[in-house]
Amino acid sequence: MKEYYMNLAICQAKKAFKKGEVPIGAIIVKNGKIVSKAYNNREKSKNAINHAEIIAIKKACKKLHDWRLEGCEIYVTLQPCIMCFGAILNSRIKKIYYGAKDNKFLGSLSDSKYNCLNHNINIEGGILEKECELILKNFFKKIRKK
Amino acid sequence: MKEYYMNLAICQAKKAFKKGEVPIGAIIVKNGKIVSKAYNNREKSKNAINHAEIIAIKKACKKLHDWRLEGCEIYVTLQPCIMCFGAILNSRIKKIYYGAKDNKFLGSLSDSKYNCLNHNINIEGGILEKECELILKNFFKKIRKK
Repeated sequence: MKEYYMNLAICQAKKAFKKGEVPIGAIIVKNGKIVSKAYNNREKSKNAINHAEIIAIKKACKKLHDWRLEGCEIYVTLQPCIMCFGAILNSRIKKIYYGAKDNKFLGSLSDSKYNCLNHNINIEGGILEKECELILKNFFKKIRKK
Repeated sequence: MKEYYMNLAICQAKKAFKKGEVPIGAIIVKNGKIVSKAYNNREKSKNAINHAEIIAIKKACKKLHDWRLEGCEIYVTLQPCIMCFGAILNSRIKKIYYGAKDNKFLGSLSDSKYNCLNHNINIEGGILEKECELILKNFFKKIRKK
């Protein structure tokens, strides 16, 4: 099932790719049901906040009529940045599944259980890692050619 | 001038207070001019993302037609949480001025210069600290009475 959801997140990343955005996708799932899907939209929206995870959280809060996304899990193609990691904590999502590793901020934190704020969060990386990496590599290769 | 801008952020926090939201306000300034003002709106919007800083960044991006808020500074009544700190980094704001200290996440990081992502960020805490603390204390006192 993890691979199934990550594949859906990859489909979202591909949508971002087509629109010239850094191809990152996210899916929020609760009790096996998809709550929201989103892709990075920073360039087109000209908004520093609009990473895939943030948009997915925003949509999920709207759908569930609550800022607390208790019982939800997020699948994201790239390890979250510090902003998105914080947003995931703030929204009380219980587990992060990510695909490719990001060596910038949180690389050193991955694949462990943390005690942050007043709740536990569980992180599992490397789901369809190669596929998630490939789409990013292809994107940056295309960018550099231009 | 720091106190002047922080006072404006406090005015925003007071608006949040009146609406039953945790009273935190933020102001973004560029070259001495106010770019955006915002207050925490998490409960009413039922959105985990809607902290004062995030809304201020979103408004500033819209106003400046760019996700890069280069040359901007943010004034916020409470030390940013990890999500907002990450959002400030992502938006390339150059300096954070905050009022009250938050002992949760980033307490240990404050008042220093960091090298995060590909740019420097400068942090200065304790601007009108007592005033910023007082409004939060009054809010939680009121909540507990209920």
